[in-house]
Amino acid sequence: MPMPSRCDLLIRGAGVVSVHTGEIRPADVVVTGDLIRAVAAPGVRIDADRVLDAEGLLLAPGYIDAHMHIESSLLTPVEFARITVRRGTTTVLADPHEIVNVAGREAMAWMIEQGRSPAQTMLWAVPSCVPALEGFETAGSRLTAEDIADMLDWEGVTTLGEVMDYRAVVEGSPRMRAIVEAARRKGVRLDGHCPNLSGDDLGEYLWAGIDSDHTKNTPEVAVEKARLGMLLMLQEKCLTPELVARLRELPVLPDFCLVTDDLAADAILERGHLDHIARVALDAGLGPLAVLRALTLHPARRLGLDDRGVVAPGRRADLVLLRALDDPTPVTVVCGGRVVEDDGAAAAAAAAPVDNPFADSVRLTSLDESDCRWRVDLPDGEHTFRALRVNPVDTYTEPAEVVLPVRNGVVEWEGRTAVLAVYERHQRSGRRTMAPVVGFDLVEGAAATTYAHDSHNLTVVATGAAALRRAANRVIGSHGGICVAVSGQPAVHLPLPVGGVMSPAPAAEVAAGAAAVREALHAWGWRHRNAFMSISTMTLPVSPRIKLTDKGLVRVVDRAWEPAVL
Amino acid sequence: MPMPSRCDLLIRGAGVVSVHTGEIRPADVVVTGDLIRAVAAPGVRIDADRVLDAEGLLLAPGYIDAHMHIESSLLTPVEFARITVRRGTTTVLADPHEIVNVAGREAMAWMIEQGRSPAQTMLWAVPSCVPALEGFETAGSRLTAEDIADMLDWEGVTTLGEVMDYRAVVEGSPRMRAIVEAARRKGVRLDGHCPNLSGDDLGEYLWAGIDSDHTKNTPEVAVEKARLGMLLMLQEKCLTPELVARLRELPVLPDFCLVTDDLAADAILERGHLDHIARVALDAGLGPLAVLRALTLHPARRLGLDDRGVVAPGRRADLVLLRALDDPTPVTVVCGGRVVEDDGAAAAAAAAPVDNPFADSVRLTSLDESDCRWRVDLPDGEHTFRALRVNPVDTYTEPAEVVLPVRNGVVEWEGRTAVLAVYERHQRSGRRTMAPVVGFDLVEGAAATTYAHDSHNLTVVATGAAALRRAANRVIGSHGGICVAVSGQPAVHLPLPVGGVMSPAPAAEVAAGAAAVREALHAWGWRHRNAFMSISTMTLPVSPRIKLTDKGLVRVVDRAWEPAVL
Repeated sequence: MPMPSRCDLLIRGAGVVSVHTGEIRPADVVVTGDLIRAVAAPGVRIDADRVLDAEGLLLAPGYIDAHMHIESSLLTPVEFARITVRRGTTTVLADPHEIVNVAGREAMAWMIEQGRSPAQTMLWAVPSCVPALEGFETAGSRLTAEDIADMLDWEGVTTLGEVMDYRAVVEGSPRMRAIVEAARRKGVRLDGHCPNLSGDDLGEYLWAGIDSDHTKNTPEVAVEKARLGMLLMLQEKCLTPELVARLRELPVLPDFCLVTDDLAADAILERGHLDHIARVALDAGLGPLAVLRALTLHPARRLGLDDRGVVAPGRRADLVLLRALDDPTPVTVVCGGRVVEDDGAAAAAAAAPVDNPFADSVRLTSLDESDCRWRVDLPDGEHTFRALRVNPVDTYTEPAEVVLPVRNGVVEWEGRTAVLAVYERHQRSGRRTMAPVVGFDLVEGAAATTYAHDSHNLTVVATGAAALRRAANRVIGSHGGICVAVSGQPAVHLPLPVGGVMSPAPAAEVAAGAAAVREALHAWGWRHRNAFMSISTMTLPVSPRIKLTDKGLVRVVDRAWEPAVL
Repeated sequence: MPMPSRCDLLIRGAGVVSVHTGEIRPADVVVTGDLIRAVAAPGVRIDADRVLDAEGLLLAPGYIDAHMHIESSLLTPVEFARITVRRGTTTVLADPHEIVNVAGREAMAWMIEQGRSPAQTMLWAVPSCVPALEGFETAGSRLTAEDIADMLDWEGVTTLGEVMDYRAVVEGSPRMRAIVEAARRKGVRLDGHCPNLSGDDLGEYLWAGIDSDHTKNTPEVAVEKARLGMLLMLQEKCLTPELVARLRELPVLPDFCLVTDDLAADAILERGHLDHIARVALDAGLGPLAVLRALTLHPARRLGLDDRGVVAPGRRADLVLLRALDDPTPVTVVCGGRVVEDDGAAAAAAAAPVDNPFADSVRLTSLDESDCRWRVDLPDGEHTFRALRVNPVDTYTEPAEVVLPVRNGVVEWEGRTAVLAVYERHQRSGRRTMAPVVGFDLVEGAAATTYAHDSHNLTVVATGAAALRRAANRVIGSHGGICVAVSGQPAVHLPLPVGGVMSPAPAAEVAAGAAAVREALHAWGWRHRNAFMSISTMTLPVSPRIKLTDKGLVRVVDRAWEPAVL
């Protein structure tokens, strides 16, 4: 078929990077429609509707995110796409397990529908664990194996989302077995989540057909997984110099992907998306070609996308123009053949209002004093309670102990410890739990959120009852959100009325709100590298080691209840 | 799911090679059914029906051949599998384009059926070019785009076989476009064949969606292909030190596969199958880990086989035990969980006779004197004829010239040159062509074969008419085969009555016959590294540079007729 005499876009003068050979060679790239029509010798003669002068720049494939959750940005899909495609992310595989835990199949269908309009390609994983840990928490929905089998046939769905209840897999629970079998029958890929799972247990998880992991592991466990063919998906917290050093000393550097998992709007706008993860990877000691392959070729392969991940004729015209191989932030992005314009504030202002079918997801009335009382069936006197110890770096929570007085069946915690309180918010059950939290030196105040993995019950950390009520009631009043109320200061409040986990507002506004929340958390004393994630994962019963759901304390690694009183 | 207390096979004490990290680590491998159940710490306690003591050996995944033709072994699928699985080849993607050129869809169905019984996994490619070069030759069948679309849905079919008519692709012929589009609609992979195609023409071939190549290229063209994401499938003749040196100097060693393409029974029994190609690759300077990955991980990926290519729980128990990483010939092979026994002569003797539905494929009667006359429409006198110049190394044929006298419309070639004669043998058309052959110093004799790529017309090279008749008539009399008749010596004859391209006999018998033919060819003076391939590709009009079909001389690179007389 002879080359057409005219093309839609001509990118002139770039050095084209081959992710296969690592070479950089000058070429003119001819784009027709959403495809690369030719990679021609420099100076090709062809009429073009638009010419990009790329002299002095490098041209590489668009970035592909093989594991992420759009809801973590706190944005709806269209706004998420708008701010991430500018950072070079042209394809994502999204697992909407936050909103699906709130609103089930209907929410998944809505996300897919919302994801159709952006230029960014959105593929979908069906959440495998809704709720995350069956029997240990109350979510807004529950997906059966039959639901999942059905949803795996939906258009755009390619994957079973991270199988977080890894103990259920290892122990062969009939529910998880049925879910895994459903996915295997459909022939889709099965994504994993199994922090530091190793040895025979890891073997059982692999035996189930789950062959990726994006959690943080010790370098030894990461290598054990790679050795057995499990695809490492490295997110920011995984990319330590220790891991990189361990990987680089292997006889063969195993294939890996770089993924974002959970990045909030403010982090994306300030630091970037996959380009930010790439910078972290470079800083940790990975070479620029390994990093580029982990953003393009390897995730394309993982997602079964033969049509992209390399600059070649016939591939999708998802492209980034870079200043240098070790500078992953694109100067210009081409997505589906179209140059992504930096529309900035204008486009944001013009953004169509999002229809929100999940505005009524926080089914709680304002908390009163009695709602903040921690009642126990214990005699008067001092008792030792199981506490969660948080740390400033990651989301691991160690079991700790706090001694508190009990009087008339009420724990007198105020002034003695911070507490974590979880209020069930889906089924109007009135169920709530409390436990002490140690690890940070907090001033008087509270933080409340309905974005709390993965059941997204109303979760509050507080040093006192008044602050607890103040923060919680702001969140309840806005149909979901995050609020930090530090004593003597105005409350900082980010409404998240879409299922209590996303905002319909433009990205800049959400980012400003998220940044303000983050700042307030730090000012309060919650000095964590990712204060959001730190708080919102204290309820996630598949994240080691000890967590609190609306039903009680969970010993994650044993998949068992932990007594509240020792 | 707890480990069972009993397994079918336990492989104890091996060093397990990870194709992902390159590590070698001691482990006991537990096999149940056809799957690896566990890769356990050494000394695992489990009852086993059978224990393989692998102390001092390495354990690696079984080898996978991503491009080959079973017919080239001259064996039927069951015998092929029997002798190659012992060499570690546990999976093949077979493109049966030899027999399909003879007998069409029925032959493809028969091959698939025959391939079901062996332990070896046989996957199938639908031949894309039947005949190889539409309009330039007469085959026994012709596949339309509709035929191909239909056959791509057959069970076991995963690929569109090598698109050899690359000029038709580049030029956009409607027939090839329809075939390529049919395959793209089915979502199967498209394998290529495009020797030294480069630049804009290569771009057009990639644009069509064809993304592998197994032909011999200059190192520069091979790198150009790899750079654009075309998967290099390296067969013996490709594996030169020059290519390896060029690949190794790249910033990243691109993924490649090792493939056999065409190996005859005697070569397999004497030198090996993929293990032989691996040795050639090692000798050419590739590292043992790169070689092992090219036999396992990379072809598994190419074939979309997530279930194999790595030693890990849940993967298929296709395994080889090796003495050392740089010694690719297996000590023991496990295929589908079963230890492959070296059954030797006993099994061969007991092999079930093959039902042969293609016994009547050579539709020619014995040649008489007039059939050996080369008639031309030229005046008496000397004329310059286009000749094929063969060489001792590869299958390239250069155009040459031979001056011959013509008298009464007959070329007087005997005693002056060897000739190549092609007799159409499918449609009883009576069509035949002749051309001089130069390059070897031959004694008086002839070689005749109905195995002649890809139309498999009766092809004879002869120094004289008597020898031509003698060799050809032996082949016609046996319903196909290969015969070398050197003057003054007994004819050496290997019958190939299955479509004129395969023997129903046991491998050892066929190998002995093939070896005898090879020896006879050498004795005759046809001193080629692969004398078989050299003769049987002189009729292949997609193999550069000049070939002779039953219709005339073809200038391959131009996809055009070449005049017989200059």
